[in-house]
Formats: sequence, structure tokens, C-alpha cells
Amino acid sequence: MNGAHTLVETFLKNNVDTCFANPGTSEMHFVAALDAQTDMRCVLCLFEGGASGAADGYYRMKQDVAATLLHLGPGFGNAFANLHNARKAGSGIVNVVGDHASYHLPYESPLKGDIDGVSGAVSHWTRRAPDAGSVAVDGAAAISAARANNGQIATLILPANTAWDPASASVAAPAPPALHRPRDADIDAAAARLRAPGAALMVGGAALWGEGLARAGRIAAATGAILVTDTLVGRVGRGAGTPMARMLPYAVEAKVAAMSDITSLTLIGTERPVTFFAYPGKPSLPEPRDAAIMPLCAPDMDIAWTLDALAQATGAAKAAPKQQALTLPDLPQGGAIDLTKIGDVLAALMPEGAILCNEGVTAAFHIMPQLTGARPHDMLGVSGGAIGWSLPGAVGAAIACPDRRVIVFVGDGSAMYNIQALWTMARESLDITVIVVANRGYQILRDELVNVGVERYGANAQAMFDVDNPLLDWAGLARGHGVPSHRAEGIDGFTKALGQSLAEPGPALIEVVCPD
Amino acid sequence: MNGAHTLVETFLKNNVDTCFANPGTSEMHFVAALDAQTDMRCVLCLFEGGASGAADGYYRMKQDVAATLLHLGPGFGNAFANLHNARKAGSGIVNVVGDHASYHLPYESPLKGDIDGVSGAVSHWTRRAPDAGSVAVDGAAAISAARANNGQIATLILPANTAWDPASASVAAPAPPALHRPRDADIDAAAARLRAPGAALMVGGAALWGEGLARAGRIAAATGAILVTDTLVGRVGRGAGTPMARMLPYAVEAKVAAMSDITSLTLIGTERPVTFFAYPGKPSLPEPRDAAIMPLCAPDMDIAWTLDALAQATGAAKAAPKQQALTLPDLPQGGAIDLTKIGDVLAALMPEGAILCNEGVTAAFHIMPQLTGARPHDMLGVSGGAIGWSLPGAVGAAIACPDRRVIVFVGDGSAMYNIQALWTMARESLDITVIVVANRGYQILRDELVNVGVERYGANAQAMFDVDNPLLDWAGLARGHGVPSHRAEGIDGFTKALGQSLAEPGPALIEVVCPD
Repeated sequence: MNGAHTLVETFLKNNVDTCFANPGTSEMHFVAALDAQTDMRCVLCLFEGGASGAADGYYRMKQDVAATLLHLGPGFGNAFANLHNARKAGSGIVNVVGDHASYHLPYESPLKGDIDGVSGAVSHWTRRAPDAGSVAVDGAAAISAARANNGQIATLILPANTAWDPASASVAAPAPPALHRPRDADIDAAAARLRAPGAALMVGGAALWGEGLARAGRIAAATGAILVTDTLVGRVGRGAGTPMARMLPYAVEAKVAAMSDITSLTLIGTERPVTFFAYPGKPSLPEPRDAAIMPLCAPDMDIAWTLDALAQATGAAKAAPKQQALTLPDLPQGGAIDLTKIGDVLAALMPEGAILCNEGVTAAFHIMPQLTGARPHDMLGVSGGAIGWSLPGAVGAAIACPDRRVIVFVGDGSAMYNIQALWTMARESLDITVIVVANRGYQILRDELVNVGVERYGANAQAMFDVDNPLLDWAGLARGHGVPSHRAEGIDGFTKALGQSLAEPGPALIEVVCPD
Repeated sequence: MNGAHTLVETFLKNNVDTCFANPGTSEMHFVAALDAQTDMRCVLCLFEGGASGAADGYYRMKQDVAATLLHLGPGFGNAFANLHNARKAGSGIVNVVGDHASYHLPYESPLKGDIDGVSGAVSHWTRRAPDAGSVAVDGAAAISAARANNGQIATLILPANTAWDPASASVAAPAPPALHRPRDADIDAAAARLRAPGAALMVGGAALWGEGLARAGRIAAATGAILVTDTLVGRVGRGAGTPMARMLPYAVEAKVAAMSDITSLTLIGTERPVTFFAYPGKPSLPEPRDAAIMPLCAPDMDIAWTLDALAQATGAAKAAPKQQALTLPDLPQGGAIDLTKIGDVLAALMPEGAILCNEGVTAAFHIMPQLTGARPHDMLGVSGGAIGWSLPGAVGAAIACPDRRVIVFVGDGSAMYNIQALWTMARESLDITVIVVANRGYQILRDELVNVGVERYGANAQAMFDVDNPLLDWAGLARGHGVPSHRAEGIDGFTKALGQSLAEPGPALIEVVCPD
């Protein structure tokens, strides 16, 4: 038994049985240890951004951690952007990063770099295993850290000799520390506050789906408070049967308008709302100046307990929240493709329990309203605003929930990031339908340049916004990665392609050429 | 005039006129400023790893800095791995990273993150512009830092308000500080040492090509020293007319053997040799135990001056180094493809002045010997061992040297990293021939598992080494990115496809299915 074997056994002992991997030379003993354990599911990603995004999607749906296997500092760098998204979503991940043997580190070998530094810039917890004997304890501590505070990024750096030197046994991960809870007096104050005119309850984290969201809905119904959710969230339950909630829009003016009637905002499981970006002369904070922002339960505190306590304090146990009705649109018949029609088709066909990975950016503004009354589903968003999330995230969600259909709605600019995840979808035969809306550019940048006051632009700006020379052939790119594909011509073509993919196992990609 | 305009004007004033970009919302004022300056060449990369790799390839050939434009922490993370390669190659790059307006940073917006931290893990120099008035000074300082010490990674973080607030004028970059030089006594000692039996001169940096390499060759000829170059280097002149040199091989045993007759190793422009990776029971240092390692001129010191001083001290001015003769192989006629034949075809057809971006990893071991007597060319390597360099690096090299043919030799595992660079090749009509050797897996990992003592492996290891299920269709992937492609069947097909691409402007990709 060596350090690497004790680490893999520690993972399995603590129910970490999925590893999204892109190993390199420094992780060979860990690979050999994984190889010895058939209970461990190893999923190869052809780029580390695919591994970290998949571990994030896995956590969001499974509510438990997977491991990633990354190759020194550059591998961690490649994983960085989706670790950023995971951090903002509150996902727990255990990263295993191989490093050179400790005695090799004094020399300037090509791959030597500052792994601790790059990890520290996004991980909540970073530890370097000092020797083989401590690897199991360190691995168990990493699992505990990843499960603490509702999910954290925990990174274990594994010098090669700590993997190959002899070690003894696996270790049970200590239970993460108990979550902090609000004081009773703050619960009571919130209960009173929520009954006032214009009071709003804004929820995040585990209060955004399932029983958490239902409980938040009952509290809102019992108190008359407005139920609010943020713009970009890791996961939110939507569609028929979910409590009516006000999702804050992206654009500054619309966000300000959506909060204009709010006098107080009680926060559970979320930070205060803020605009995505600052613009000259526009506010960072969207609420009215005299609105009270009242943090009750921070994202890393005990959200379920808080909801329960607040439900009791407000007598909400039997309240009947106003629920979204099932309102399926008719399938559009004939004609050109536009985004509203795409939303209608998606709403009409999307099966119950679908997982929608939404990275449509600007295009999503047009389809989200159509999905409000669709069959109940979970929507996963680009929580950290770093594009390149949805394809890897869908891989992780599909592995976490093999009985549910995963649908990716993504713009072409975003889909080019971490496009390698398509291959993993095919390799693992995942039930994922990818809809790429090709607007042939970064539409959001075209919009944002106008937002900052530039009405007309020239060749250099166009060179950085337009992805139309040459045209990307999405159907061809998908096939190149082993994923069947269709280019939808006309809305009927889209309806047919979507229906076909939803009816068949495995992945498919549908390219839709459509301006925003 | 705002801060962003003064920064772009500062770039142009200091001859930084190329920007590899993937902007986001936080960089809109900088984009507007770039748009106002038609002298600035903006090259769009569909992933930030493409931007950093291109800036590195540009520096290696131009020996001057380009800028990158990156989007907050996640954008920097995406650029990280190729910045690592650039750092190891000694390339100078100015990264401009947009951040939120400073007054927006107290709030937990989605994209808020530790840009300073992730930059500090790979940059030599990181500064955050405090206000618009100082942006030009900070930009000039970044340019100086990037040009200092033979090339450094300099990162300027640009909060959005420092870009949009009023500012006055561009600034001339101060000259970088003078490079350190060895003491005269050390030059004299080296001159004496190099005449001893088994003495070797190992060179790096600017001593690896052109006049620097020629001078190193004359010193070796005058003293009888063995001329040594390292395994993975940023750039090395090869082919006919270059001084005969001993390139250290990758594998530990071969590296040890290649140094077994060396009694002293004088270093100019390079670190001491070290194995790529540590293996159980194998040495980190390849030289004989009693060999003297004598650093004379570190990579960040004055290499040209040192070579000149040493040439004088050794009376090498008129020495005639043993040069590589032009020895072009016959074109192989017919039969199946193998790597040796690919090397022969490449050697026979590669034009003088070609720039070979070599990321063949294991496959390159087989073709490099064939290229020894080819027409004179530069070879650029994956200096930091982080795969995903060659496609972006080729973009930068082609933009730096529009009159030279760039050839990429890359394995399929590596080419999937930063594959998006293909699109930029097509968009910019760059004269790049990409040869993808598809061994359908990470051959180096198959080898390395054996190196660490595992003879047979099972499903989990295979799942992480093999990229054959599904098969990647490289010809299709290239076309999807807008690059013409061929799948070579038989060696004659390869010869024809290579000849055709070398004769035509613009990029092409040739897929070769071939085991190592």
C-alpha cells in the first residue's frame, strides 16, 4: 500500500466515488491506485476546465462532492475558471493536484510552478501532503473541507513521492463542523419584518429548489412577502408547481425596476443583490436607497434550519404558496427560427425533471420567460459569470442524475470554451441535448459597448466581437467530437431535431443559426 | 481622453502594436480605445489560452512583447498554462486584465475574484492601476517590466473606472534596467575550464539561435568543449549550417547517458539540466556525480555580452565550428505511414526559414533525428511542459514572421487543448501547416505508467489514457473551425498533403493516424 492507494481508499470510504480526470506524468501512481479500485468511476476530460466544470455540475445536482485530478500548476490553471463558477455556486469539490516529488522541487524543471499560489486564489482550503503517511489524513481533511459550509473548493497537492512511498491505511473523514445558525431574536425580527408592506425574502443556495424552495414559498405566502431570487444562481427549481418568485433580471435598469417596490430585503442563503458589472453613472446596488438589507443566513450558514425556524415563527407550515401553473405553449408551426419560438418549443417538449444548463447569456433573456410554466425542472446557471461552464457542467449533472435528461442552452461564443466536453458526453453516452444558438459573435459585448456609451464602432472592436469569419460549423464540430448533430433550418426543423434527441439515449447537438 | 485611451496610446508609443484578445464586459472601454487606433493589430482568440500562447509565440520569434487582453480572474486562469510556458521560455508579455470598477469590488458580484492572487502565481510583475491618471504610467511600467531580464510576464490589472475616467497623455516606457553580467574573473575561469577534457558548454535563451548560437559554436570549436542544449527550450536554431550540438534527450536513462562523459558544465542563459519529472529510484540530476556545474550567466543576465566576452577570452572569433551539413532524405515512396517516414518527408519538404512548433511529445522523439540535416529552421518547444501550446504559439509566430512558413507537429492529446486556435489561424489567414499525429491517446502516460513500475493496467487507467472512444475526427474538427484539412492515408498521401499545404497560403491541417 502506498500513499496514492490510501488516498483512493479514503475517497471510497467516504463516498467520493467519481473522479473527473486529466492526469499527467506526476499523477501516475494515483492513476495506478484508481485503476486498482473498480468502484471508482473515472471520467476522462480532454481539458481540465471540463473536469472542474463537471465536478461543479455533479455537486449542484448530487449535493455531494466529486474529485478532480489535475496536473500541476498549469492543469490547475486550466481548471481555474470553472472552479471560480463552482465557488460562486457554493459547490464542494476535492481537487487532487499532482506535483513533483518534494526532493525534485529545488530544481527548475519545466513544470515546476506555484501550485499553492494559483490554488489559493480560488480554493477555500489548500494543503500540500508532507509525506505518504499523512496522505490519507490529508485526503480525509480535504473531503471534510469540501463538505463544510455548504460546499467549498478543497485542493490537495500531492507531491509524487507522497503518492509512491509506503503508507498504511485509509481514514474516515471527520464530520464537517456544524453550520452556524441565526440567533432566535433575528428569526423573530425577520418574521415580523416580512409582514410589512414591500417586504421581500431573497433566497439562495438550497432554498432555491425542492423542499427548501417550497418552504421559502410558504413563508412568503404566510407573510405576504415578495419572494426574490438572484440573476445568476447555481441551481433553481422552475416550472409548474414551484412557488411564484421574482427572478432579478440582468440589465441594470431592469434590475433596479424589479426592486423599486421593495422596502426591506431579508437574505437567506444569498449575498445581497448587486449589478453584474459597474457602469459609468449607474448604481452598483439595485435596491431603493432607503430599503433595508437584512442578512439573516449567509450562504455558508444553516439554510434548512433557518427556513424551518422562520416557517415556524411565521406560522407558515400550512400556508399555500401561489404556485406556477403548468402552461405549455402550442408548438409553433412553420416559419423562421426566432428565440421566442425556440423557448416555446423547449417549453412544450422539455420532460419533467429535465436539468437545463443555461449559458445562453443574451439569448437566454428571450427563452426564459417561455419556460416559466414548463414541466418542473432545475435550471443551472453560470454562477460566476465565467463562460465555458455549461458543456462541462452538463457532463457532471448527467453523471449525478443518470435518469434525467440534461439540456444545454448555450451561445456560440460560450460553447467554444471547453468545447472538448462534447467528447466526454459521447464517451460516457450521457443523455444530453446541446442547443447551440449561433449568433456568430459575442452579442453581450456588442450590447455592453453601447452600454458604456459607444454607439458606433470600427474594425478593431468588430474584430473582437464577431465570430463570423470564418463561420464555425457547429454540426461539424460536434461530429468531430463523436456527438451526433443537426443544423436546424426553420422552426419545424428545430422541433423535429429536439424531439428526436429527447427521445433517444445519448448526446446530440442542435445548431440553431439565429440573431438575438 | 480616458485611461483606456492613454494606455493604448502608451502601447503604440512604445511599439507594442499587437494585442491577442478575448475581452469581456469589464474591458469595453479598452476595446473602444483599441478601436480608435487602427495601428493596433487586434487578434481575436476564442479562448484565453490562445491569447497567452500566441503572445508567447510572438515574443519567441519577434523578441519583443505583445499585449493580451483578458477578462478578470477566470480569463487569467484560462491564460495561465500558456503563461507558464511563456515564463519558462523567457518570453515577455504584457497582460491587461480588466476588473470591476474599484467602488464595485466591495460587493460579491459573480465575477469578483482574486486576480492579484492568480496573477502573482505566474507573473513576474503585477500591478493594479489605482486611478485613470496613473494608467499610462502603469502601462509603461508594465512594458518595461515585460522587456526586463530578457523577457518577463507583466500583468496590469485595470479596474473599469480607471479605464473610463478622464486621463491626460501617453507615457514613454523607461528603458529596462541593464542586464547583469558575469565578473571578468568568471569569464576567464570559464575560458580555461572549457579547454579541459570532458568540458561542456550548455546554452539557452538567445544563445540558441542565430548569432548567439553561432558564437556559442565558435567558443566550443575554439576550446574543444561539447556544446549542449536542453530538452525543452523556447526556441532553437536547427538544420543545415547550425553548429553541431548535443540536445539532451527526455528520458532519464538517455539523459544520464548523454552526460556521462561530461566533467564540467558551464551554463550560459540556462538553468542546470534536470529530469523532466522525478521517478522512484532514479536521479533528478543527470550529470555524473563529480561533474562540476558552473553557472556563468543566468537566463535573466546579459547573454550576448557573455558570449562575446567568452569568445574573446577563448580567441574564438575566427574559429570554425563544426556545422550541420544539409542532408535531405529521399522522399519515401509508397507504403504505410510511420513516424520515421513522416520525419523524412518533413525534412525533405520543409522550406528554409520554417518555424517548427513542436508539441509531438512522444511522437517527436521519432521525427526529430530526421530533421537534423534539414534546411535551416527554428524549432519552438513546449518550454514549460504544459500541453496546449503549439496551436496558439503558431498563431503568434506566424503573426511575428508573416514571411515564414509555420509548421505545427502535435499529438492528438495535446492538440485538443486550445483547439480553438485553429479558428484564429483561418480568420487571420496565417501560413500555418498543422500536422496532427493521432495515436488516439496520451502515449506519454502509457509510457510513464510503465516507468513507475506498472506493467499491466485495467479499465480505470485505460479510461484516462485512451482517446479512442469515440474517435476524434481531426479533419472534421479543422473544417468546423474553418481550416481546410486532409486525412493522410499512406505515406504518399501525407507527402502530397504536406506539399500542397506548403505551396498554398493560409492554414491547413493534416491528420495522420499513426501509433508511436
